Amino acid sequence: MPNPSVFFVSDGTGITAETFGNAILAQFEVKFRHIRIPFVDSVDKAHQAVRQILHTGEIEGRKPIVFTTLVNMEVLSVILEGCKEKTMLMDMFSIFVNPLEKELGIKSNHRVGRFSDASKSQEYRDRIEAINFSLAHDDGQLNRDLELSDVILVGVSRSGKTPTSLYLAMQHGLKASNYPLIPEDFERRQLPPALMPHKKKIFGLTIQPERLSEIRNERRPDSKYASLANCRHEVAEAEAMMRRAGIRWLSTTHKSIEEIATTILQEINPERLIY
Amino acid sequence: MPNPSVFFVSDGTGITAETFGNAILAQFEVKFRHIRIPFVDSVDKAHQAVRQILHTGEIEGRKPIVFTTLVNMEVLSVILEGCKEKTMLMDMFSIFVNPLEKELGIKSNHRVGRFSDASKSQEYRDRIEAINFSLAHDDGQLNRDLELSDVILVGVSRSGKTPTSLYLAMQHGLKASNYPLIPEDFERRQLPPALMPHKKKIFGLTIQPERLSEIRNERRPDSKYASLANCRHEVAEAEAMMRRAGIRWLSTTHKSIEEIATTILQEINPERLIY
Repeated sequence: MPNPSVFFVSDGTGITAETFGNAILAQFEVKFRHIRIPFVDSVDKAHQAVRQILHTGEIEGRKPIVFTTLVNMEVLSVILEGCKEKTMLMDMFSIFVNPLEKELGIKSNHRVGRFSDASKSQEYRDRIEAINFSLAHDDGQLNRDLELSDVILVGVSRSGKTPTSLYLAMQHGLKASNYPLIPEDFERRQLPPALMPHKKKIFGLTIQPERLSEIRNERRPDSKYASLANCRHEVAEAEAMMRRAGIRWLSTTHKSIEEIATTILQEINPERLIY
Repeated sequence: MPNPSVFFVSDGTGITAETFGNAILAQFEVKFRHIRIPFVDSVDKAHQAVRQILHTGEIEGRKPIVFTTLVNMEVLSVILEGCKEKTMLMDMFSIFVNPLEKELGIKSNHRVGRFSDASKSQEYRDRIEAINFSLAHDDGQLNRDLELSDVILVGVSRSGKTPTSLYLAMQHGLKASNYPLIPEDFERRQLPPALMPHKKKIFGLTIQPERLSEIRNERRPDSKYASLANCRHEVAEAEAMMRRAGIRWLSTTHKSIEEIATTILQEINPERLIY
């Protein structure tokens, strides 16, 4: 029996449909076959989507699962009509938006999700600017404009600073700088002096020495840099330094960048937060 | 009257709850006040969340809106019990997961969403590796390992290549290289020779000269680089070159990185796609 097919049908990118669908599908120990049908913004394309979905259902001999985030009523009704009884359709808007209209006492405007026309909005431009800022301030490259940072991450090399910075920029529109902690910081036993005026924006990342050594060995096998002894030394020094400086920090060893970013947002609570 | 408060309550990061909630809230011309309550993974924390939500409702004199993606039944029941009738609660799992269990004929495993324990999975490590690869192959910096790219973006400076590459890496785990098209390419009237063996992975980005000039002026005001005449020339040359090369391309002028990425996925259809 093939893996159950799941369709994500949307007038836009389908990202909302897929994020939500994935969260639900993750509850099952089944591998699903994902089929994205984005940009369904006309009745024609809706009919085409219905044909594709029903055809799959016939071949597989079971009801396909369909997640939709369609807001155009005409397009939605083609999908609803075409898919009813022959698929497992989960239309997220009609289930949630309608009750909300009642509660708020206002009509919704039925526009396509958060990404549409984004490029024209100041919010979107700020987000792109945040990505550029975070790239320019990666790995302590640039001290200039440091005061414009919303968050400054510190930690030893390969503790997860760069992916976390880029995630904070891309998803939350935050300007995130990051600084590696290096031997001269350990000798001085202090965080890099350039950072001290911005202490309340600083967040530390640490990592188990064993995992760090693994990661570094992928990059520079059998180097002193990657040796467990050196990783132990650097991590111990960095943690001691963060404790002394009284900054907030966490261990990234068992955390995804999404979890790290969520914790940072809670702790730093930046004034400027786009999403 | 203050903006309506919206709570996002989750056992994990709350990203799924918030993405879905935002798509729904975007249907209303109202500014909402977002309150994230992530990592609600115990009965104690659930009671705390309920107190916070009800307190807000009392102060504001209206029902708060609550989006939840709680999978722990014990935690969920505290929220359901505490919030009923006093909030507008939208529990996404109980609405969708239960019907799906019936249809699939299997029980769900009630585990926390897609980000939990991610750091241990190969999928997650591949994603981090893709981010590192895409950073190293930003802006034509590195020809080495170009054949490992899933996607290679080309376009004039500031056409959107870098944010799109990073998005493809971060969200879809794709190794995305990008190459600027520069005067010597225009003179040779050909795409950079290093790219030609990988033609089916190449995707072009272009942009309206007026918008390009605006973006470049923010960076280098009144330069030849940013002048409208130069932008027109570069864009015309780049588009002619992409046409001659027969590669797929699009204009980023009115598109968000999410929309650009979705189109690239459809067109390039990379073999290795994590999400």
